[in-house]
Amino acid sequence: MNISQLHAFYKVIRGRAIALITPLSPEDCCAQSMMEASPAKWHLAHTTWFFETFILERAEARFRPYNSVFRELFNSYYNGIGNQYPRPHRGLLTRPSLEEVLAYRATVDQRVLDLLDRGMLNPDQCALITLGLHHEQQHQELLLTDIKHLLSFNPLAPSYTEAQSVVDRESPPLEWLAYSAGLIEIGHNGKGFCFDNELPRHLVYLPDYQLASRLVTNGEYLDFIEDGGYDNPLFWLADGWDWRQRQGRAHPLYWRWMDDAWFEFTLSGLRPLSRHLPVVHVSYYETDAYARWAEARLPSEAEWEHAAQLLPVTGHFADSEIFHPSTPQGDGLMQCFGDTWEWTQSNYSPYPGYRICAGAVGEYNGKFMVNQYVLRGGSCVTPPDQVRASYRNFFPTDACWQFSGIRLARDAN
Amino acid sequence: MNISQLHAFYKVIRGRAIALITPLSPEDCCAQSMMEASPAKWHLAHTTWFFETFILERAEARFRPYNSVFRELFNSYYNGIGNQYPRPHRGLLTRPSLEEVLAYRATVDQRVLDLLDRGMLNPDQCALITLGLHHEQQHQELLLTDIKHLLSFNPLAPSYTEAQSVVDRESPPLEWLAYSAGLIEIGHNGKGFCFDNELPRHLVYLPDYQLASRLVTNGEYLDFIEDGGYDNPLFWLADGWDWRQRQGRAHPLYWRWMDDAWFEFTLSGLRPLSRHLPVVHVSYYETDAYARWAEARLPSEAEWEHAAQLLPVTGHFADSEIFHPSTPQGDGLMQCFGDTWEWTQSNYSPYPGYRICAGAVGEYNGKFMVNQYVLRGGSCVTPPDQVRASYRNFFPTDACWQFSGIRLARDAN
Amino acid sequence: MNISQLHAFYKVIRGRAIALITPLSPEDCCAQSMMEASPAKWHLAHTTWFFETFILERAEARFRPYNSVFRELFNSYYNGIGNQYPRPHRGLLTRPSLEEVLAYRATVDQRVLDLLDRGMLNPDQCALITLGLHHEQQHQELLLTDIKHLLSFNPLAPSYTEAQSVVDRESPPLEWLAYSAGLIEIGHNGKGFCFDNELPRHLVYLPDYQLASRLVTNGEYLDFIEDGGYDNPLFWLADGWDWRQRQGRAHPLYWRWMDDAWFEFTLSGLRPLSRHLPVVHVSYYETDAYARWAEARLPSEAEWEHAAQLLPVTGHFADSEIFHPSTPQGDGLMQCFGDTWEWTQSNYSPYPGYRICAGAVGEYNGKFMVNQYVLRGGSCVTPPDQVRASYRNFFPTDACWQFSGIRLARDAN
Amino acid sequence: MNISQLHAFYKVIRGRAIALITPLSPEDCCAQSMMEASPAKWHLAHTTWFFETFILERAEARFRPYNSVFRELFNSYYNGIGNQYPRPHRGLLTRPSLEEVLAYRATVDQRVLDLLDRGMLNPDQCALITLGLHHEQQHQELLLTDIKHLLSFNPLAPSYTEAQSVVDRESPPLEWLAYSAGLIEIGHNGKGFCFDNELPRHLVYLPDYQLASRLVTNGEYLDFIEDGGYDNPLFWLADGWDWRQRQGRAHPLYWRWMDDAWFEFTLSGLRPLSRHLPVVHVSYYETDAYARWAEARLPSEAEWEHAAQLLPVTGHFADSEIFHPSTPQGDGLMQCFGDTWEWTQSNYSPYPGYRICAGAVGEYNGKFMVNQYVLRGGSCVTPPDQVRASYRNFFPTDACWQFSGIRLARDAN
Repeated sequence: MNISQLHAFYKVIRGRAIALITPLSPEDCCAQSMMEASPAKWHLAHTTWFFETFILERAEARFRPYNSVFRELFNSYYNGIGNQYPRPHRGLLTRPSLEEVLAYRATVDQRVLDLLDRGMLNPDQCALITLGLHHEQQHQELLLTDIKHLLSFNPLAPSYTEAQSVVDRESPPLEWLAYSAGLIEIGHNGKGFCFDNELPRHLVYLPDYQLASRLVTNGEYLDFIEDGGYDNPLFWLADGWDWRQRQGRAHPLYWRWMDDAWFEFTLSGLRPLSRHLPVVHVSYYETDAYARWAEARLPSEAEWEHAAQLLPVTGHFADSEIFHPSTPQGDGLMQCFGDTWEWTQSNYSPYPGYRICAGAVGEYNGKFMVNQYVLRGGSCVTPPDQVRASYRNFFPTDACWQFSGIRLARDAN
Repeated sequence: MNISQLHAFYKVIRGRAIALITPLSPEDCCAQSMMEASPAKWHLAHTTWFFETFILERAEARFRPYNSVFRELFNSYYNGIGNQYPRPHRGLLTRPSLEEVLAYRATVDQRVLDLLDRGMLNPDQCALITLGLHHEQQHQELLLTDIKHLLSFNPLAPSYTEAQSVVDRESPPLEWLAYSAGLIEIGHNGKGFCFDNELPRHLVYLPDYQLASRLVTNGEYLDFIEDGGYDNPLFWLADGWDWRQRQGRAHPLYWRWMDDAWFEFTLSGLRPLSRHLPVVHVSYYETDAYARWAEARLPSEAEWEHAAQLLPVTGHFADSEIFHPSTPQGDGLMQCFGDTWEWTQSNYSPYPGYRICAGAVGEYNGKFMVNQYVLRGGSCVTPPDQVRASYRNFFPTDACWQFSGIRLARDAN
Repeated sequence: MNISQLHAFYKVIRGRAIALITPLSPEDCCAQSMMEASPAKWHLAHTTWFFETFILERAEARFRPYNSVFRELFNSYYNGIGNQYPRPHRGLLTRPSLEEVLAYRATVDQRVLDLLDRGMLNPDQCALITLGLHHEQQHQELLLTDIKHLLSFNPLAPSYTEAQSVVDRESPPLEWLAYSAGLIEIGHNGKGFCFDNELPRHLVYLPDYQLASRLVTNGEYLDFIEDGGYDNPLFWLADGWDWRQRQGRAHPLYWRWMDDAWFEFTLSGLRPLSRHLPVVHVSYYETDAYARWAEARLPSEAEWEHAAQLLPVTGHFADSEIFHPSTPQGDGLMQCFGDTWEWTQSNYSPYPGYRICAGAVGEYNGKFMVNQYVLRGGSCVTPPDQVRASYRNFFPTDACWQFSGIRLARDAN
Repeated sequence: MNISQLHAFYKVIRGRAIALITPLSPEDCCAQSMMEASPAKWHLAHTTWFFETFILERAEARFRPYNSVFRELFNSYYNGIGNQYPRPHRGLLTRPSLEEVLAYRATVDQRVLDLLDRGMLNPDQCALITLGLHHEQQHQELLLTDIKHLLSFNPLAPSYTEAQSVVDRESPPLEWLAYSAGLIEIGHNGKGFCFDNELPRHLVYLPDYQLASRLVTNGEYLDFIEDGGYDNPLFWLADGWDWRQRQGRAHPLYWRWMDDAWFEFTLSGLRPLSRHLPVVHVSYYETDAYARWAEARLPSEAEWEHAAQLLPVTGHFADSEIFHPSTPQGDGLMQCFGDTWEWTQSNYSPYPGYRICAGAVGEYNGKFMVNQYVLRGGSCVTPPDQVRASYRNFFPTDACWQFSGIRLARDAN
């Protein structure tokens, strides 16, 4: 990307965040529904802090912090930068107000673009801007998942956005697509942006395997429930069964049983549950239990990436402004990109030869490589520029508030 | 009170809440800093719910709820009325917005006053309105204590109100005032409003005792700290020592040690700690430990009330708009009313012959009469009409976020 | 008591502990079922530590500790003496063995008696021996309550002792005995031993009141259960309802519903529940809820003591070797002493003029005077010499593992 | 194995457990120091339950349970068999006594051997006996690790066994051994017993890598500590740093700083820490932090197994009766087997094509394949027949009470 392309990319990406909060009140943007989620306002400020800290502070001759307290307030987890405001208290930051945070964004944006336009940034700094814009997109997705989580606590069942028509019709039948054994390559192939955790591209040996042609639907998942899936420990990992017992969980996170029918809380409020749509907001534990019940298993991330890397990165993403997964159409391997993130059976760990980035952004990925599992492919709330076949998302096994769904795999017969 | 007096009283009291939130943003009004505190918006809505539920629903011929979900959202703890929205989640109620809650208030107020003016309310219902207005005042005080707690989490140390001059000069010396043994009476004497927990007025035998002439100051409390008060378990109740160890507490809740000096977080931001001002925001445990160190004890509520009941109910209350305690002047028993609540050694329990109110408001007081201790006299954030000599406030032994201070007592020599 | 009487008293009391553990294995004596309970072996060692620390260490010319580690291991809570081994880990002390602890007891006993016989102890030290023997008796009672709690976790439902016939027949009808208002005295009257918390004797004004003639029975408590007592929050204190919900409690601690009938776990194993026997092992919360359901209340400790102080201290105590409460006989105020401890509505607090003992034993009582409630009268596992009309036992409101039962009171009509 | 070999194997393995408890008292065998550890008596009973349930119950014509309650008491986690006694309460099972459990063992052993000798067991049942004996060996190791954990809580620092001379001399220098890239095989090769989780043998592609020639020593680990290893978050995984902060951990589990020197609690009591001996009882988090500090990483399990599978399975195991790791001698890849378990960076997950055993023992391994990491090679408390190159042990990342140590790996230059 040259400078004017980067300038344009910066404006597009940063502008989307402002559009995303349009339907929200200052109160909506301030509240935090659990430690793992952050207020929308915090997302807006933190991504700005990233540019202030990693670009302005290093490139501006007479840098002065916008507000010296922000350095701590909006640092997420960079121990190399200094202290961080306690994560569970982010919802208590009623000041600065949303308006002040938007002013902070505007100022930092102007100063970044000014440096860029005046040719004051070296290639490494331009690369950091690109990283910052991908980071921004990750937070734009989280802003939506976190708002959904927050609104789900409200008995008024508020809508984030007016209902739009999800594609909701009979799904094509689930078919098994076969892939042959061999020594294959995964990891980013060197063209365009990627995160450090997608590198290096490396060899992996895969045996014969099969992937389901589409995501599991609500209807199929209901069959699992009605067959006693949540009541039979033999379907569950031991940890998963503990989780299910402790939480009293008997259905996906946002399902509601009301007046003798299933409903689903969505970003457009409560909707009757459709059997055709993909099941979404399931934990790794639920995904694994469903797969065992279905006499299948989850794909490894290598299997998934091997199959996905020849497909175009198209699908139902956030730019559709329909923030709920939909029914696929077509044939072959469908819904790989968009609709829902797909749990894999792969633990999030470094690729052979992985090197953590030097410097302050070295805390971006590597330090989270334990006790989390990889999800692939993006979802209906993922910005369209964010995802690649090699993109690795990761969450703990009990996480449900992301738009996570189920792709089955199995060994060759 | 006749109807027009009640009408006027209603308007004054309800109006004060609106004044109290003037310095606050919608975000400030929505956040909740701990389970025991509530958002300002919730206080505004809950007190309105009280009038809607206990007055309108019973007295309006064609009553329709303002919003049927509010019945649950803004019910605090009345099991007789139905379910309650979970207390720790009140800060997640970003909807209804502050604006909507103010509209709810306006509508209910209009309907209550309309019923009142049209003579549609019987004396019991008028009494319930009076109860509701005292309830409102209690929540106005909590609104301030809860906002202070919330803002204290913010490293920006925001002010609720612009600084006004607290009276801060040398205190008169602490003197011991003697009271003689005898069979005395406590409890409300029958004139004017009181809560059920102040009744019945009854006989208590008191031995000779002495009360300190004024509240303990920050300077005196600092002497306790500097004498190792927080490090010597022999000053502490066993439970108190556990609390102090578990919390790592070594000073009152809102004190801050910065740049080699003590500061105090107030509703006007961080202020250098004044040795002259009363110590405030101490727990029962700290109060008891201080008293043991000072070779004194806490007063019983009967001792306190016996001494206070002949004094006029005047002092530094919330109408001063100085939301911080101040130095007393004069002589005799000073600061009995206002400045800080005063912990007593008395467990909150029913008076002999106590009867719980009949009907739905019976849950107001009686069910809390266990594992809490009585505080007396009101504070600088208490509305001036709220307190009487017989008024009983009550909190658990670890509570610090109220404006609670220390009055010493001792046995006669 | 002269020296030879004290010698004899020492031998009798200390000997009882050895008899109490006769039915127990070394494993039984080592395990700890919750933080609040202690292993039998620990009780044996701690009471010995008391004599070693407070008598031998001060009175022996060439004192050497039996084992210097025991000073910490068997110190319960005396901060004045030094560190304490963490209370929740007492069950991990598999060493010293039971045999070693018995040897420790024998050695310390011999040395104490030797000092006593040789006239080496001054009156204060003799008084400390007497205190130590009352302390020993308290721990002998706890040894039984703690063993019952431990065995209750075992699906084999083991017996501590072979079944003996509890007196189990129809109870006399519950009658209300009236007491007149007046200025009365409570507290120890100066004859014989008492703990510091029973002093000073002091005046209390009581209004007219009534006490139930006997304890509440299992049958009466079953009526409460069958009337939905555990399901109606309006019977409960708010804290009590929280406790009941959190614990899922729906009956007294040791009741078991098996094969369509109620059983009760006793120190003689599982027994069919008798409607005639007193209900036992109820918390303050359950006691209070039952009383509200029964349109009565709990007595205050002053009411109880005023009524009890003219009765002889006789009843069903541990010397009967029937470790379960029984049906009363006779008339007037029955079961005041023995059978079950009786919850009072009185918070455990210092009497007017109370002074904590000087010196190391000053931590015995005073520091626990917060957030606990007073029980009176002793139980079927209380040694017969332990209790007086002025004796104050105390436990938190959720404690059930003591032999605690229900005596009702009410205001005069 | 033919029947007489199996008979002999059974007697040898089962006999070892009895030898292991010889130094222990009944109290030692009953206590449980944390939920993850079990009492020695429980291990003895549970392994016996395994034979009673999976052999006797199915093969004896007139099977009657030894004690029907044992079925629940000693079931560890087999949901297919029925309920389980709650794991955190195993230390409360003072009954059955140790003596009774030994009688239970003797009876079951006699009945199993009788069936075996009379030819009443089919090959599947003989295979289950073999499985049961490997299961027994796993519990014999746990018995030692759990006793060490229990005794470590005792300020008397008791010895499980009299001190024997650990080999403790200067270690050979740490060298890096290089292995070449290629498609290799791991998993059990089909000869002799293995667990289901070692199957199937399968292809894995490995890049060039290097392994350290020996385990990390206490001296090397001290260098990490003295270089601020526990105080610098940049060495730690984010989860690991949280763990270290929450636990206040600043050294390996059993190290003690006393009188200005490091000591180590061992199964022979407290010993001065030797710089030469392998560091042991470190968590995955500590291992990973040490490796990052040392500019290395952990091996994957495939790397480890590839290097180990040609070595003989010899080393310092439990049959040495020296229950502490020792200094290696020789050259090449040392200490692969015995001394300490070696953490790998591999998450415990199913091998491609893994099938869970049919029937009741299907819960043995598969359901634990989440959120745990693989350790390889056995330790000084592992029975010599238990381990193979393909043997996969697994524990959560915070586990320290196993004899876990550190083998470093790194990418080829």
